[in-house]
Amino acid sequence: MAIPRLTEIERDDALKGLPGWTLSEDGLAIEIELEFGDFNEAFGFMARVALYADKADHHPEWFNVYNKVRVRLTTHDAGGLSARDVAMAQFIDGIV
Amino acid sequence: MAIPRLTEIERDDALKGLPGWTLSEDGLAIEIELEFGDFNEAFGFMARVALYADKADHHPEWFNVYNKVRVRLTTHDAGGLSARDVAMAQFIDGIV
Repeated sequence: MAIPRLTEIERDDALKGLPGWTLSEDGLAIEIELEFGDFNEAFGFMARVALYADKADHHPEWFNVYNKVRVRLTTHDAGGLSARDVAMAQFIDGIV
Repeated sequence: MAIPRLTEIERDDALKGLPGWTLSEDGLAIEIELEFGDFNEAFGFMARVALYADKADHHPEWFNVYNKVRVRLTTHDAGGLSARDVAMAQFIDGIV
């Protein structure tokens, strides 16, 4: 069961509400690079997102080193961005 | 206060005890790619390593997507591999 992919208009509208997030070069994902005070804070953030992800059954691609976390959101089943990515980005913005 | 970097002999000896880990191309880090049953298991693993990392004040560089975790260990203050990386790799091997 495929998840609907956002149209370009929906995508651009969503990005307007997500300052700090950038569209990946291929247009299939949104990305953000976050910096925290230390590793404890960075991983604390990741733990909160992980609980959300597990519940929503929607998972980030992310990289962490010390106090930095790079997050990339895309929906493989949609072949690009879906409403699930926007919802996760909003959740992330809400806790950062 | 710099952390001593492993000599090549120490490094090669350590790697013999860490099957599954590979030396990065530049020789400055060791890496492993792990696969778990699902995201819950993958992040559960990360949480255990995070607690170790916070206590040891030594942090992995790692990437996660769904059930996969790629880990890279290096010691910036040593300009390459140190005993801290070997200890963390042994800890990871112990819980995987």
